[in-house]
Amino acid sequence: MRIITLCTDFGLRDWFVAAMKGVILNIQPRAIIVDITHQVPAGDIRAGAFAVAASYRFFPRHTIHVAVVDPGVGSNRLPIAVATKDYTFAGPDNGLFSLALSGQSVKTIHRLENQKFFSKAISRTFHGRDIFAPAAAHLSKGTPVSEMGSELGDYQKLHWPMPNLEKTQLRGEVIYIDRFGNAITNIQPQHLSAFDLDKLKITVPGTKRSIRFGRFYQEAESGKALGLFGSTDFLEIAVNGGDAGRLLKLKIGDPIIISALGG
Amino acid sequence: MRIITLCTDFGLRDWFVAAMKGVILNIQPRAIIVDITHQVPAGDIRAGAFAVAASYRFFPRHTIHVAVVDPGVGSNRLPIAVATKDYTFAGPDNGLFSLALSGQSVKTIHRLENQKFFSKAISRTFHGRDIFAPAAAHLSKGTPVSEMGSELGDYQKLHWPMPNLEKTQLRGEVIYIDRFGNAITNIQPQHLSAFDLDKLKITVPGTKRSIRFGRFYQEAESGKALGLFGSTDFLEIAVNGGDAGRLLKLKIGDPIIISALGG
Amino acid sequence: MRIITLCTDFGLRDWFVAAMKGVILNIQPRAIIVDITHQVPAGDIRAGAFAVAASYRFFPRHTIHVAVVDPGVGSNRLPIAVATKDYTFAGPDNGLFSLALSGQSVKTIHRLENQKFFSKAISRTFHGRDIFAPAAAHLSKGTPVSEMGSELGDYQKLHWPMPNLEKTQLRGEVIYIDRFGNAITNIQPQHLSAFDLDKLKITVPGTKRSIRFGRFYQEAESGKALGLFGSTDFLEIAVNGGDAGRLLKLKIGDPIIISALGG
Repeated sequence: MRIITLCTDFGLRDWFVAAMKGVILNIQPRAIIVDITHQVPAGDIRAGAFAVAASYRFFPRHTIHVAVVDPGVGSNRLPIAVATKDYTFAGPDNGLFSLALSGQSVKTIHRLENQKFFSKAISRTFHGRDIFAPAAAHLSKGTPVSEMGSELGDYQKLHWPMPNLEKTQLRGEVIYIDRFGNAITNIQPQHLSAFDLDKLKITVPGTKRSIRFGRFYQEAESGKALGLFGSTDFLEIAVNGGDAGRLLKLKIGDPIIISALGG
Repeated sequence: MRIITLCTDFGLRDWFVAAMKGVILNIQPRAIIVDITHQVPAGDIRAGAFAVAASYRFFPRHTIHVAVVDPGVGSNRLPIAVATKDYTFAGPDNGLFSLALSGQSVKTIHRLENQKFFSKAISRTFHGRDIFAPAAAHLSKGTPVSEMGSELGDYQKLHWPMPNLEKTQLRGEVIYIDRFGNAITNIQPQHLSAFDLDKLKITVPGTKRSIRFGRFYQEAESGKALGLFGSTDFLEIAVNGGDAGRLLKLKIGDPIIISALGG
Repeated sequence: MRIITLCTDFGLRDWFVAAMKGVILNIQPRAIIVDITHQVPAGDIRAGAFAVAASYRFFPRHTIHVAVVDPGVGSNRLPIAVATKDYTFAGPDNGLFSLALSGQSVKTIHRLENQKFFSKAISRTFHGRDIFAPAAAHLSKGTPVSEMGSELGDYQKLHWPMPNLEKTQLRGEVIYIDRFGNAITNIQPQHLSAFDLDKLKITVPGTKRSIRFGRFYQEAESGKALGLFGSTDFLEIAVNGGDAGRLLKLKIGDPIIISALGG
């Protein structure tokens, strides 16, 4: 239980993340702190939720995952801790964990309210440092989630767009664009069960051309686009050796249409 | 004494920080190294001093804080180590520690000159790797500051602008703009003792409007500006859900005027 | 053997590096993971090779260096591990290690093919997470390189431009521009044995002026250029307090001419 991950929109330019780490090490000097990312776009809960969901499962059991993308800090949104079969999650209850939790068996959800596990002075603007970091450090020392505060019935769900099967075509959308410019869609393998993967046409409305389906980037000619199931098991639109987001002018929310070749 | 923090302007694109960490781990394999930030603007001693001052106190006692923002590397500025009641600081004596040290009881200041605690070959351009990293590693193994070199009477002070009370108004200035665009001023709660916080007018000369004072970001309407005491206990100008620096065209050094509402 | 370094082009915005760290800690909970950089320009094997070569030697013996700049992921380029006298390197066999290995005594090179040391499901797009991270974790637990797979006779070499001595002048080129704008060339001290360092003229073709040679940045007047041997022992073109790359419009591949002053 010594591993604590941090996923925030605090950036790396300022000292915010370091202050959280100092607070954690003060309480739990044996913590192993791992950064997921601190470059979630400021206030973008959906992007933060995606980063948590894409990474949490690779960590050992009992890892404590802290995420803070918290535009409502200081208002009445609740700070929570959620225990699942394998992990504990701590952060603001604003949907940030809902994507990760939807794939897990949730055991218990508690409000973080026991001041014993907070920093002594609590700012109204930096709960990452004053509430979530100390609570996570206490959790990593073995304090059960149930001691953190009263039990809650549920956690906030994020609206997450699901792909639609419309007659003979599946309509999904871009949900994330990664650092390489790969445009990750909300389409997963199970959504394509009605299609023959070897005869797939991927269309980006607005661009005229259709894109082929492949297995790895270099299957396309250099500079050419392809669709493939990426490392998170979502269909992504990529360009071999290039930036699909920029070259195809893709942005989050853009529709992606799947149909049968020649169909 | 195993925790060593690093605060530099080396950036994260190159291998400079990694080289420092390798040197530290070579001498002290049990070091726990924590990054404060490596994105201090190149050569900006004041921004580095602010990052150190804002973060050092959150770390456990005996933490060794290394900071390297060192435009004078290789010239005659001195490398120093400073022991305070709770911490040790190591880096160039160019004012980088003065803001943090002004809030602490300084015990002793020594020049880093004992070559026994340096790397064997010392470059003229990278003392972070060749002097400060190995010295910090030796300090973390228990070598007292006094063995590092001759004692010094004082450390370099940084010019730090203080707010001025002019008749009925307080004139401060922007000293830092963080990643969210919050413009942190040099005004602290004690400077406002003559004012009623609930009847405060904050004026940014150049913009016509005055800004209200609040406690947390969402107290302002979405997209609206407010002033509040941020997590470092300085008055900051923020925009709920937005980037105050950009929206109000604020930059470091800009004046901020506090007066009484209706005054 | 607990230290594992990571050098990639994955960036810090997404969760890719974190997923690798999770996989490593799952197998080797005692690993000490150090980031070299994750901001190698996407797909730029030469820049990655330079970062590995510039940093590997500062780490303790038995450190495992993982590097993943891998535009050919999923194609037929081989995953390899290379044991030298002091270190182990793991990553794609595309030249990424050749610069570092050229300075070392290579003991053995093995293909990573024993699936026992991989993740159970192997994506076609993220071998950093599914092959290199788990293999490195097993290596750090003491599994010898020879158990990873069949032995290979050699590793891929990168084309690396060498400076040319043409009559009385040496012609080198810019190979890297660092975060401060220092333009690092391929010229090392041994290439200048025919010259008197105190009477050196450095010319950047295209700009009219010649640049003096110095020992440290502040030896030049503020805002003025100089050439000096930097911390990696390559000649670099710098501007005291400024960005040489931008001010002199230098880019990678640009020629740099060394001749004798007055010659």
